[in-house]
This record gives sequence, structure tokens and C-alpha cells, in this order.
Amino acid sequence: MWFRQLVRFSSSFSSKDLKIRLTSSPKKKPELNEKLLFGTALTDHLLEINWNETDGWDIPRIEPYHNFMIDPASSVLHYGTECFEGLKAYRTAKNNLLLFRPEMNMNRMKKSAAAVALPDFDSEELLKCIKELVKIEESWIPSKVGYSLYLRPTFFGSHAGLGVAKPRSAKLYTVCSTVGPYFPEGFKPIHLYCDDTIARAFPGGSGDKKIGANYAPGIGHTAKLQSKGFNQILWLCNLYVSEAGTMNFFVFWHNKQGEKELATCELDGTILPGVTRDSILTLARQWNEFKITEKKFTIYELCDAINEGRVIEAFGAGTACIVSPVNKLTFKDREYKIPIALGNAGILTKRFQDEILKIQYGEISHSYQHLVI
Amino acid sequence: MWFRQLVRFSSSFSSKDLKIRLTSSPKKKPELNEKLLFGTALTDHLLEINWNETDGWDIPRIEPYHNFMIDPASSVLHYGTECFEGLKAYRTAKNNLLLFRPEMNMNRMKKSAAAVALPDFDSEELLKCIKELVKIEESWIPSKVGYSLYLRPTFFGSHAGLGVAKPRSAKLYTVCSTVGPYFPEGFKPIHLYCDDTIARAFPGGSGDKKIGANYAPGIGHTAKLQSKGFNQILWLCNLYVSEAGTMNFFVFWHNKQGEKELATCELDGTILPGVTRDSILTLARQWNEFKITEKKFTIYELCDAINEGRVIEAFGAGTACIVSPVNKLTFKDREYKIPIALGNAGILTKRFQDEILKIQYGEISHSYQHLVI
Repeated sequence: MWFRQLVRFSSSFSSKDLKIRLTSSPKKKPELNEKLLFGTALTDHLLEINWNETDGWDIPRIEPYHNFMIDPASSVLHYGTECFEGLKAYRTAKNNLLLFRPEMNMNRMKKSAAAVALPDFDSEELLKCIKELVKIEESWIPSKVGYSLYLRPTFFGSHAGLGVAKPRSAKLYTVCSTVGPYFPEGFKPIHLYCDDTIARAFPGGSGDKKIGANYAPGIGHTAKLQSKGFNQILWLCNLYVSEAGTMNFFVFWHNKQGEKELATCELDGTILPGVTRDSILTLARQWNEFKITEKKFTIYELCDAINEGRVIEAFGAGTACIVSPVNKLTFKDREYKIPIALGNAGILTKRFQDEILKIQYGEISHSYQHLVI
Repeated sequence: MWFRQLVRFSSSFSSKDLKIRLTSSPKKKPELNEKLLFGTALTDHLLEINWNETDGWDIPRIEPYHNFMIDPASSVLHYGTECFEGLKAYRTAKNNLLLFRPEMNMNRMKKSAAAVALPDFDSEELLKCIKELVKIEESWIPSKVGYSLYLRPTFFGSHAGLGVAKPRSAKLYTVCSTVGPYFPEGFKPIHLYCDDTIARAFPGGSGDKKIGANYAPGIGHTAKLQSKGFNQILWLCNLYVSEAGTMNFFVFWHNKQGEKELATCELDGTILPGVTRDSILTLARQWNEFKITEKKFTIYELCDAINEGRVIEAFGAGTACIVSPVNKLTFKDREYKIPIALGNAGILTKRFQDEILKIQYGEISHSYQHLVI
């Protein structure tokens, strides 16, 4: 008995112990058209790994997709002890399956978990397990351009007890969903609304972690604005431009010194350290054609730059869309128009999109690619 | 069929439709001693009411306590779309069951729900349903002094889909737990640790809502401090004294003008509008013996007042403990001693405790009492 315990549980799970049970009733695959709603075409299987304080990590399992049995007194339902990640698996023309910088998601998830009192894990082992899941769900990854398999690693406190305390048990899992291109009919520029009376994050808080706490309050604010015709919130943190909706925000402008500059908020703990954000900055630094700055700038600096005709383009960046062109900004009842050189996107915005797509879909060889098959 | 739909669903559930199904296998009641851990002696039944965007509210049901089946793609597990409340049912010497200002919890829950994009409900109807649950769980409410039935209304987004969006389905429920006195062996003063590099809430955020987002990040910070011998965090918001752990914070001092004053942070949107907080302020205003002020004051003002011998006592306030005396504060590596006139509590702290207990356990008649039976 003690030996079985020793084998089954350990301080870190290992992909070598992965147990796989395949479904006997595969779901119907979604139609690949613009009606495919993000994150709804959930696949046949999921990866799950349970942890508890006494025994540590159980072995990882790939199981048919199923509901979880959760105690109504579970930590996550009361105190929001959960975190997640988002990344995609892409099918190349040569029929390889690629992930895009997945080790960044794995490392960020370790930090998010620590921020909500969830236990540590070996991120390389999690990635190995996720790759096995991707192989099993291969048939859910379309070969159609722009389509991919969205992967959602998630981790929550399952411990039942109403005391505000560290969860004594938890579940780490990953579900997958076939997703289409974010802009099925080409770029659609967005109108941002900026409100200096609401905030997403703050110094000393957890704005740089991918935890539910950073999302729930924004959903209601965003829904209200969308009913008024705006698309996303341009979040401020003490008047500094922070994020656009759930994306990092970039502006390409002539700065006050007259230099061409790509600027985005620095990683000061209040914004998500986005994988796409980092990729854009790294690509731009390699191109070495203009100044690249991670710095704080206020909404007033941004509005002034628009007014003075110094803004060349602006965009949001994230895994779901890669880049999302911005053509309008409303702040204090005034609408600011942002240039869109190509009609539906700026030239630099489209260049980032094209370059990252080439890497993701394996059209060029790049160190960001992580081969699954 | 359409008629059945019409009867079963509506824009607000009604307690008149409550369906009750009792357990056939009641649990063992907990031993009433100091080993009874808060929020773990969960009772035989729960109240649950489902909602979805298409049909509105289903009828309320009291069912045997059971696990929930939750889709792994549920909103709450990813985006923290949940809120909760905490209140207690007390047994009086005359064998009545009382709630303490439950309408305040119900109203606050409506506001919390709105903040995390969950639908509205009729709070009076929820209270009526909860009262039925309390009647059914009557045998779980000890007659022993200091014991009570803790009630935990909870509400979460159950909608399956990975898009960051308003939940299209949700579950509102209430579980109960027999709880003992917070200080089984009399008051035990706490040592607060104040760190100006971390924050619980911020202007423009959701610090005044009872949502998981305000709790998860604090659990990890608190656990770290507790391992160093401190009890709770004294939270600051831009250097203003905000909350103590998950309690409101009060200081009774001679202010700079030499007046005796009970001070606590004003309801500026960054602190929880506590029921106990409000009760303390209201009682003190009725006594009319000293100045009562809801205002912002900085950690430096507090430390100065301690240094100058102006602080008479300090305490936290919340439903779980009523009041929690504070005898030490550590800030920037310096320990500040706070007077504790009675050895384990200040005189005013104990007076609030005694007065509120008298109301809660029906020793005196008071408008705060809400009769269940």
C-alpha cells in the first residue's frame, strides 16, 4: 500500500506516468466557417492532474471530456483561487503540428499559480502532457488557413471549506477548442473607450498574472460599453495607458523628439507579460528600423500625439487575434481618430500579423516554433 | 410545453415556487469544541437556483447537499465570475432563530453580482428561500453560547465557453455550516503586518464587492506572513489604511485635535461595506459618547498616533469574529505596540462585542434582529 502511494503521488507529476483513456463516442467536428464561436468547439478529451496537500501530485491523465464534480464549498467558487493560460496548436502545410513559444505560457502559469496560493509544478512536464493531448486531438486541428487548436491550461482550488485559506487540494487541467481566424473577413479595426474612473490593475496588485480576478470585473464594464457601440476598454493605471481589453496595447508614433518609435507599457507588474507582446518587441528589435520603447505614457500624451498628427498607428496584441488594429479612441466624451494606412490596419500592424502567422504556420523556420509532430 | 416553460422560468425566482427534497441519510453533527474548524461542518441540505439567459430563473430548490457538475469550460473556472456573502443564524435562549441584518447581505450580493456580470435577482425572495433552508437545518444550530449556523450564499457563472464574456448561465446557491465562537478561549489579540508594496484594492476597482477577485491574491500573501508569525495584513490603498485581513479596521484614538474619536476608512469604493462595520458605527452614534469619523487616514498618521501615545485601542470587524483586537502592528521593520486595556482586548472593543452578541443571541430586542422562527 505504501509503495503504491509512493508510485502514484509525488512532489511533481511526470509525463512518463501519463494514463490515457480514449473516448468511445467522438463528438461531431465543427463547421469551419465564420459562425464558429471562439472557445465553444471543445474537443473529445482533456488532460487532468489532481493535487492535494497530503499526497502531492497524482499522475496525469488524459480522459474523455467530462464535467467535474465540485463541492459547493470549493475554494474556487468562493475565493477565486484559479489561473489559466491560452496558447494554440497550428497545422503547417507539411502537416506538422506546431506550438508557439509554449514554454512562456508554462512559466507564466507557475507565477499565476503562486499568486493565488496554488502549488508549484514542473512546467516542462506539463508541456509534455499537453503535447500528448494535442497529438490525441490532432483531427480537431484544421488544415484550413487561420484555423488552429486553442489550448486552455487551467488550475483551480478544489478544497472544500469556507475558511479563507490556501487550498488543500487542486485540479490542473487542459481543455482544447478548434478556433477560427479572429478576423474571418480581414482586419476589423476597433474603437476603444477610455474611462479614467475604472481600473483593471494597480501597483502592488496582481495585474501581471493570468488569474480570474483580473477578468471578472472587466466583463461587466466591457458589456456596458459594447452596448453603446464601443469595442473594448483602453485601461488606465493612474492615468498611464495599460491594456486594451484583454490585450497589450502598442502605439507606433513620432515621439516628442521626432523619432519613429514603437511604444508599449513596461512590465511594471500592472500589465500581463504577453507572449505576443514579447514576440512583437523581439521581432521589431531584430528588424532594427525604428526605436522600440517599453515605458509608461499617459492617456494625455497619447491624445496629444493623436491631435498633433504624430500617431502612425495603434493596435492591441494577444494570442487570440495576434494584433487588433485600433482606429478610434474615445476619452472624456471626445473621439480621437487613429490613422489606418491600409484601410483596415496600419502597415506595421499588418507586418507583425504576417510575420507571426508565417512562424505559427511554419512557412518559415523560427526558434519560436515548438514541434509537436 | 410552452406553458410549462412559462411556469418554471421567470425574470425573478419566487420563494413560493420553492421545491424541497429532504435527505434520507443525515450527516453526523460536529462535536461542539474548539476543534471545530470554521466552515467545514457543512449541513445536510443546500438551496440552489439556476439561471440561464434564454429562460431566466428556474424555480428555487432545497436539495440534499451534493456536488455540482461543472463543465471544465465554465466561466467561473476561468474568469472568476462569482460572488458570495456570509451571515449567521443564531439560536436564542427562548429557542427562536434569528438572523442579523440579512437584508444588508442580500443587497450587497446584488451589487457584487452586477460587478461580475451575473444577473440580478429579487433579494427579498432569496432571503425567504434562505430562511426556509435555516428552518430545515435547525438541528444544526447549537444552543451552546457562541455557536451559530454560518450561511454562505454564493453565485457563479456556469456557462461553458472560453470567450471572455457575460456568463449565459449561472447558479445561485447557499450552503450552511455549524460554526463555533471565533475566540473559543476568549479574545486573542492579533499582530498586523503592513506592507506598502502590496495592495488589496484600488480606486476604480472592485474592492467594495464581495467577489473572489478580492480574496485569491491575498491568500498567498497572508500565508507567507503567517509563516513568519504575523496574523493578518493591514492593507493600504495609496498609503491609506484600508482593511485588516478580510475585516474592516477601526482605531479608537485621541485625534490630533485631542478629541476621542473612533475612526475607520470611509466607503470610497476600495473597502468592503461591512455589516459589522455599519453596526458598530450605528451603535457608537447612538451612544453619542465620542466622535465617530469615517475618513481616510494614512499608515503614517496611525504610526504617529501610536508613537505619541494617542491610540487607545484598535480592532478588526467582520461577521466571523464580530471584533478582533489588535495589539501589534509591524510596518517597515518596526513593531508598534497598541494598547489592550483589558489584557486581551480594549474596553471599547469588548463593549461592541458584548452589545452585538446580545442582539445576535436575542438577549435584548433590537431592530437588527430578523426572526426566522
